[in-house]
Amino acid sequence: MITEMTKQDFALFWPTFESIIKAQQTYAFDPDMSMKQAYQVWCQTPLKAFAFKVDDEVLGTYYLKANAMGPSSHICNCGYMVSAAARGQGIAQTLCEHSQQVAKNLGFKAMQFNSVVSSNEGAIRLWKKLGYEIIGTIPKAYKHPQLGYIDSHIMHKLLD
Amino acid sequence: MITEMTKQDFALFWPTFESIIKAQQTYAFDPDMSMKQAYQVWCQTPLKAFAFKVDDEVLGTYYLKANAMGPSSHICNCGYMVSAAARGQGIAQTLCEHSQQVAKNLGFKAMQFNSVVSSNEGAIRLWKKLGYEIIGTIPKAYKHPQLGYIDSHIMHKLLD
Repeated sequence: MITEMTKQDFALFWPTFESIIKAQQTYAFDPDMSMKQAYQVWCQTPLKAFAFKVDDEVLGTYYLKANAMGPSSHICNCGYMVSAAARGQGIAQTLCEHSQQVAKNLGFKAMQFNSVVSSNEGAIRLWKKLGYEIIGTIPKAYKHPQLGYIDSHIMHKLLD
Repeated sequence: MITEMTKQDFALFWPTFESIIKAQQTYAFDPDMSMKQAYQVWCQTPLKAFAFKVDDEVLGTYYLKANAMGPSSHICNCGYMVSAAARGQGIAQTLCEHSQQVAKNLGFKAMQFNSVVSSNEGAIRLWKKLGYEIIGTIPKAYKHPQLGYIDSHIMHKLLD
């Protein structure tokens, strides 16, 4: 069900991706980016991108990349998205657990999320359950359309 | 003395840049990157790069870029380098103060350093003096050639 994301997969997922970035609740992405730009950010710049598919429908996706270079290249970074209709089924957890295994197979020793918006309580709860810790909080880091400037958390997990 | 960095300026500074990344004490950059790759990372990917010059000698430099996109695009990120012979003269402070002014002129509301290596005590002292706070610490984030895996700090300052 989880396979490397093709350009076709990304096109199928694009309506969800676009709705997520336009909502500006979770991602520090340009809400007006084109599908081509989004494909570059999600699938081409990262090392890997995966799709969670059921019956040729893409219900979720994640990317994995190094979070820095050289002496810090052992820390990776991932981002996850799940379509609205498929939430509450554990897909984000499945994707995160898959990403940790892929990261370990690639030799990464830790995973870091650079911007977990403080209002995104469901994500924070899930990442904590999966062993990630809040290691820092960036004040007024995210311009939320309803809440104004709110904090973002940096979350981190050592992989073993 | 501080001007936008040209390709020629960067070439003049390259021996210092290369010695800094090869030493692997401060930057999470690939220590083996070429001058062309370094020019891209320092001058082309960022919004701006500046050179501190005296008599056509480049003694220091910094880059400035957005640290994220969309709802977090009001936070910038900078990196600074000073040549070994010119250290202890306040050039890093001058560059940092210049960068804060440039950032404000460009509309940024905060500046974030994503990886200040914990052994780099001089830098940490200077950033604290200039109003930056440690907002988080990444465990074992930097593979130091002498000290092994050591922590890095995330430092942040609201600009007003």
